[in-house]
Amino acid sequence: MRKELSMKVNVKELHNYCVSVLKFVGMPKDEADIFAEILIHADQRGVKSHGVMAFMRYVGLIEKGYMAAEFSYTTVVDNPVISVWNANRSCAHVAGYYAMKAAIEKAKTYGIGFVGVNNSNHFGAAAYYAKQASDAGMIGIASSTASPTMAPWGGKEKQIGNNPLALSAPAAKAPAVTLDMAQSVVAYGKISNIITQGIPEIPEGWAYDKQGIPTEKTNEVYSLIPMGKYKGFGTSFFIDIISGMLIGGATGERCGDSIDGSSHTFMAINPPAFGTSLDDFKKQLDDRVDEFKSCPKKDGVDEIYMPGEIEEICYGESLTEAEIIDEVVDQQNALAARLGCEARVKK
Amino acid sequence: MRKELSMKVNVKELHNYCVSVLKFVGMPKDEADIFAEILIHADQRGVKSHGVMAFMRYVGLIEKGYMAAEFSYTTVVDNPVISVWNANRSCAHVAGYYAMKAAIEKAKTYGIGFVGVNNSNHFGAAAYYAKQASDAGMIGIASSTASPTMAPWGGKEKQIGNNPLALSAPAAKAPAVTLDMAQSVVAYGKISNIITQGIPEIPEGWAYDKQGIPTEKTNEVYSLIPMGKYKGFGTSFFIDIISGMLIGGATGERCGDSIDGSSHTFMAINPPAFGTSLDDFKKQLDDRVDEFKSCPKKDGVDEIYMPGEIEEICYGESLTEAEIIDEVVDQQNALAARLGCEARVKK
Repeated sequence: MRKELSMKVNVKELHNYCVSVLKFVGMPKDEADIFAEILIHADQRGVKSHGVMAFMRYVGLIEKGYMAAEFSYTTVVDNPVISVWNANRSCAHVAGYYAMKAAIEKAKTYGIGFVGVNNSNHFGAAAYYAKQASDAGMIGIASSTASPTMAPWGGKEKQIGNNPLALSAPAAKAPAVTLDMAQSVVAYGKISNIITQGIPEIPEGWAYDKQGIPTEKTNEVYSLIPMGKYKGFGTSFFIDIISGMLIGGATGERCGDSIDGSSHTFMAINPPAFGTSLDDFKKQLDDRVDEFKSCPKKDGVDEIYMPGEIEEICYGESLTEAEIIDEVVDQQNALAARLGCEARVKK
Repeated sequence: MRKELSMKVNVKELHNYCVSVLKFVGMPKDEADIFAEILIHADQRGVKSHGVMAFMRYVGLIEKGYMAAEFSYTTVVDNPVISVWNANRSCAHVAGYYAMKAAIEKAKTYGIGFVGVNNSNHFGAAAYYAKQASDAGMIGIASSTASPTMAPWGGKEKQIGNNPLALSAPAAKAPAVTLDMAQSVVAYGKISNIITQGIPEIPEGWAYDKQGIPTEKTNEVYSLIPMGKYKGFGTSFFIDIISGMLIGGATGERCGDSIDGSSHTFMAINPPAFGTSLDDFKKQLDDRVDEFKSCPKKDGVDEIYMPGEIEEICYGESLTEAEIIDEVVDQQNALAARLGCEARVKK
């Protein structure tokens, strides 16, 4: 077992590194800026699994031809409320950014904007897109299908993703309340992080072995346990339905990188269209946050955190420098070297 | 400890009993028919806690003046996609029925229909409303705020409801896939059912005592454990936000019967507006159900059930007769006798 070693990396330099590599593999500068921003945003929020740690994988997808370096989409549906785009296997982060932007615009007309994106790729941390809406004074919802990591309840074979769902709502005093959750007890990233560190055991209740029996041994981990048992299977199934089947997207094995890719939905909800002014909405949310935060605490609890609050605090502390695992920095420099790109992350 | 005794009661007779009592306390016949249908539908699906077991409570609300016997609403917002109604503390079941009907109509225009209902009452089983949409060939979503049964994560005082959420999607061969879940590990009904039977212990992981410590002793039960720990607090919080604050509804203690009542949202999603014909949507869902149902099963598992499938089977077996707990039948007859209404449930 070894301790995870990390270092503080300048955010601007990390951004420039990512953009240089992306431009090197053919991504236009403005799109590379969006992709790098979303990627590093996850590191700034302390969600390392969806940050630069995953960059190598995305660049690999471009190299293998599974991800288009340049963003494009074909309009499948367009009405005042709904758009569905076929993203032509573009970078999902770029597609997601533009899709939520379009959903926010739509929500200005009748109060709800919905943009579905199929034929896409892994879109990283869902929270970013949901927060685009709360930054614009709306409630944002983002979700995506994902490759199988869970079995249907009662089964033992992986057939469904732990499909991420993020929701974000704007407050005035308090930071936006942002829930970003996988439909499993924990995201796979938490387990792989433990495996990477050479720790032989994971906590109880996280994973099943190949027989569908709960296991704590990392070398037996096969599938993830759904959150709330059958409930997490149910919520994941409905994300398959809405962010997959409904909008012409793939589900299960079929949304793998080398097959049809993931599909996503982005929804923006504009409070004034529901009879509640934005100021009043924000004030209600502030009051509710105050109420929860002043709830008598259990023994041993120092603070009651709102969904996303810990990540907001981490972000606030990482505006100029983000914490990156040493090995991830080394991987970046190896990646650039292999590509023949001059960019490096300073150690 | 005593065994729960129940009997088969003719559905039509039970319906007529409920309608007679409701008419007696001033509800118009057509509304009483809707209310009784939704109530008994829960019994037919085997969800006893939301069936006739709760009838006495609702009649009590009318008697106390917390629930209007006659349905009415004031339009707060109306646009092609969204309506928000102030239900004037009407019977929530009747309001919910009409609200989902209106959402389905709206979804025919731009693909999404959303009706919010505030100043309402406890709306019973959310599944009924979601299924109205799937019966009409759409995806239905219904959710509601509820009186506090859970603490915010880390706290020990009840401040938030285990806000129900139901989703239903239509298939062709398979029954509609219908998820109806509280945001707690189990609904309070399951615990009160155990307490009623005089059983001194509940399973591990269901409830906390007053200090927020997990307890299995029924006499120590104070609050419900959220599903997926902090995740269930987060999802419940977002139901408070969308089905409460956004549409002018109350949250927490304030949505109690004697204060502002609950508020609800009903959403209908029309597949063709998303580029997927209804036939194609249903076929995709059938295929996905087939895939899950043929997943290799864990040892000891006979069948892999889809969300709502067990309830669908129970409903199919209860078309003419529903299983009602003896004591609940007795309560009905005592209720009618107390009111001076001649209706009785035949034993």
